[in-house]
Amino acid sequence: MEFSSYFPIWNKLTAAQQQLLEKNAIYRNVEKGTIIHNGSVNCIGLLLVGSGQLRARILSDEGREITLYRLFERDMCLFSASCIMNSIQFEITIEAEKDTRLWVIPADLYKKLMAESATVANYTNEVMAARFSEVMWLMEQVLWKSFDKRLAGFLLNESELEDTRLLRITHEAIGNHMGNPREVVTRMLRYFQNEGIVRLSRGMIEITDVEKLKNLAE
Amino acid sequence: MEFSSYFPIWNKLTAAQQQLLEKNAIYRNVEKGTIIHNGSVNCIGLLLVGSGQLRARILSDEGREITLYRLFERDMCLFSASCIMNSIQFEITIEAEKDTRLWVIPADLYKKLMAESATVANYTNEVMAARFSEVMWLMEQVLWKSFDKRLAGFLLNESELEDTRLLRITHEAIGNHMGNPREVVTRMLRYFQNEGIVRLSRGMIEITDVEKLKNLAE
Repeated sequence: MEFSSYFPIWNKLTAAQQQLLEKNAIYRNVEKGTIIHNGSVNCIGLLLVGSGQLRARILSDEGREITLYRLFERDMCLFSASCIMNSIQFEITIEAEKDTRLWVIPADLYKKLMAESATVANYTNEVMAARFSEVMWLMEQVLWKSFDKRLAGFLLNESELEDTRLLRITHEAIGNHMGNPREVVTRMLRYFQNEGIVRLSRGMIEITDVEKLKNLAE
Repeated sequence: MEFSSYFPIWNKLTAAQQQLLEKNAIYRNVEKGTIIHNGSVNCIGLLLVGSGQLRARILSDEGREITLYRLFERDMCLFSASCIMNSIQFEITIEAEKDTRLWVIPADLYKKLMAESATVANYTNEVMAARFSEVMWLMEQVLWKSFDKRLAGFLLNESELEDTRLLRITHEAIGNHMGNPREVVTRMLRYFQNEGIVRLSRGMIEITDVEKLKNLAE
């Protein structure tokens, strides 16, 4: 895997900038389930995903959590390097949701590039705006959308991501993605089962009527 | 009011950039209650607040709303100029909450400045990160905090902003700030009244026990 073919604005950098990045970006293989970054750890650097899947989430004091967004191939994570900007005043956790190959770009180096290059700074703006848009979407879901619709949308999205109708996921894990207690998830899944939309078994959810699920999600 | 003394990074601009901004920024007096921007209107430009107070909010299809953040003197609003970035994929409404004096900076001009100046682009990054942090704070409130604590925090914040313990605000307006139906607000305010924390009368809420309210909010 070549860093240069994954860094989105590679061709807009100067030769010196390219060299700095290639020399200092650290390639890492990260196993599924690894916590790569959490709020209490200092600024580990930006993450550029080569392959795999990362999940960004927040935690409540009581241990409840919600998935903010996911990162895929060629996506970059800024918030594992919050020291690059004074105004980033929130803490998120980044977890590898699948085995993931990525590069860590040192925060100091990236900060230097942003300071000297309007191109890098504007690209960073776009990355942040994209994450902001995802969080705003989630905010609207949480505020205005009923739980049955949100759960239907979640199951459809998982099914698409994993390319299967047989989801290996616990009710607790779904609760952790959606910011809801496990009991609430279980109750709604049982309702879906009674409606013939899913079939439940230990640690698995089979989608039996995709059309009904889609109608519900809309 | 001089634009130059309100634009936060004025001294870091070139003379040509300063001239462009001074020539093209449009000074406006906006009356309390005016909707300055909403999602359906095109990119009106960035807003730089000279004095007064703006409120950014989102609306549900059913007409419910919630306040995302407020903007005060020297704050800049990017999202009334979402065309400056491709990745801003959400719509907010900006309303003058008090009589407000502001400048409108044309989106095209600002985009040009960002493209040529790393300083402007990085300043824009900081502005966006600050708003992002406010929205993340709100997200955590909505997800994890009980309504009584949120309402107590809201009343304290209003009291501080207006510098009075006698708030002239309807239960419906509070609901619109907090993303909750009016009935929920009324029920909780009555509970606060029974606890001796506030006194309610038509269109007004008097805070009678600030300490109790602070304890509740924490």
